[in-house]
Amino acid sequence: MAYIKLPEGFPGIRSLMMYRPETALPLNMLAQVLLHDPNSLSAGERELIATYVSRLNECVYCASCHGAIAKYHLGNNPELVNEVTKDPDHSAISDKMKALLHIAAKVQESGTKVTAEDIAAAKELGATDLEIHDTVLIAAAFCMYNRYVDGLATLTPDDPDLYDRIGKQRSAEGYMTKPFAIKTDS
Amino acid sequence: MAYIKLPEGFPGIRSLMMYRPETALPLNMLAQVLLHDPNSLSAGERELIATYVSRLNECVYCASCHGAIAKYHLGNNPELVNEVTKDPDHSAISDKMKALLHIAAKVQESGTKVTAEDIAAAKELGATDLEIHDTVLIAAAFCMYNRYVDGLATLTPDDPDLYDRIGKQRSAEGYMTKPFAIKTDS
Repeated sequence: MAYIKLPEGFPGIRSLMMYRPETALPLNMLAQVLLHDPNSLSAGERELIATYVSRLNECVYCASCHGAIAKYHLGNNPELVNEVTKDPDHSAISDKMKALLHIAAKVQESGTKVTAEDIAAAKELGATDLEIHDTVLIAAAFCMYNRYVDGLATLTPDDPDLYDRIGKQRSAEGYMTKPFAIKTDS
Repeated sequence: MAYIKLPEGFPGIRSLMMYRPETALPLNMLAQVLLHDPNSLSAGERELIATYVSRLNECVYCASCHGAIAKYHLGNNPELVNEVTKDPDHSAISDKMKALLHIAAKVQESGTKVTAEDIAAAKELGATDLEIHDTVLIAAAFCMYNRYVDGLATLTPDDPDLYDRIGKQRSAEGYMTKPFAIKTDS
């Protein structure tokens, strides 16, 4: 049970967003810009960064949701998402993405862990300044979302179908639509 | 020097906000709601949480800025800010604030570290659900801001006067005004 009284039957960050709409708005706006709005990294690639960091933070709810969203963006390929987030260096992604995930893992540990060499490696493989900026901010933002969801002990459903429905919804609609359509018991 | 090309002469997150206004907007909106808008925890108390977490994350820029903002909110008392963020249990704050800072320190480590006992202790000392929610989200958000600032190696000035001017500005104006008025060389 969550540590504070939240709307019942809603999972993870959805229950927190219903509880505190004033903070839900900027949290969703940030996710929309970083993960969904068109950019040179595809939405699928950016969701992989979010999923990978959530897995490193052991946030089951966020890793499951964003893994499902990534899957839908990447041609409904759950094996790829699983490979990438478990062992990016041996997965079927570009070397540039591997270098960006390496930076994301450093950020997950601490901002101070990122080195000039990590950045140079990504740039040599073609990463732009904006892609590096967004990778760092996506990784940092998931260090927030993950702590928010777990620090208040929100509901983490077991049902894979629920995450699949969230993945389908968010990959199609982005983050600015009503987050409350999916209940755990629906 | 920062890892990506940022507007020159602007410190910390200010340079990042100029570089990427699309993410600056939600990041500032979130800070405004959590730290500045009226609430049952004073702005000074909430800035202490932000400063404490930034110090735990060893983010010198954020700890210096929010320490200065807290100081202005708390009657221009730098000793209190210093005491609280170094050793909250032996500082001149309420027991409720000590319990909330204890939760914030757990969140800084990981959301999964917060226990039902930590929450019960804060509630017994009078913390409301909303105060607990906002404490967790402030702590989580500074795990983002700190990583963002340090992960891109932004400029961290040495000049204490600069932080003092930021403290004065943000304590008076909040987070939604132009962040670019203070340059390192002004």
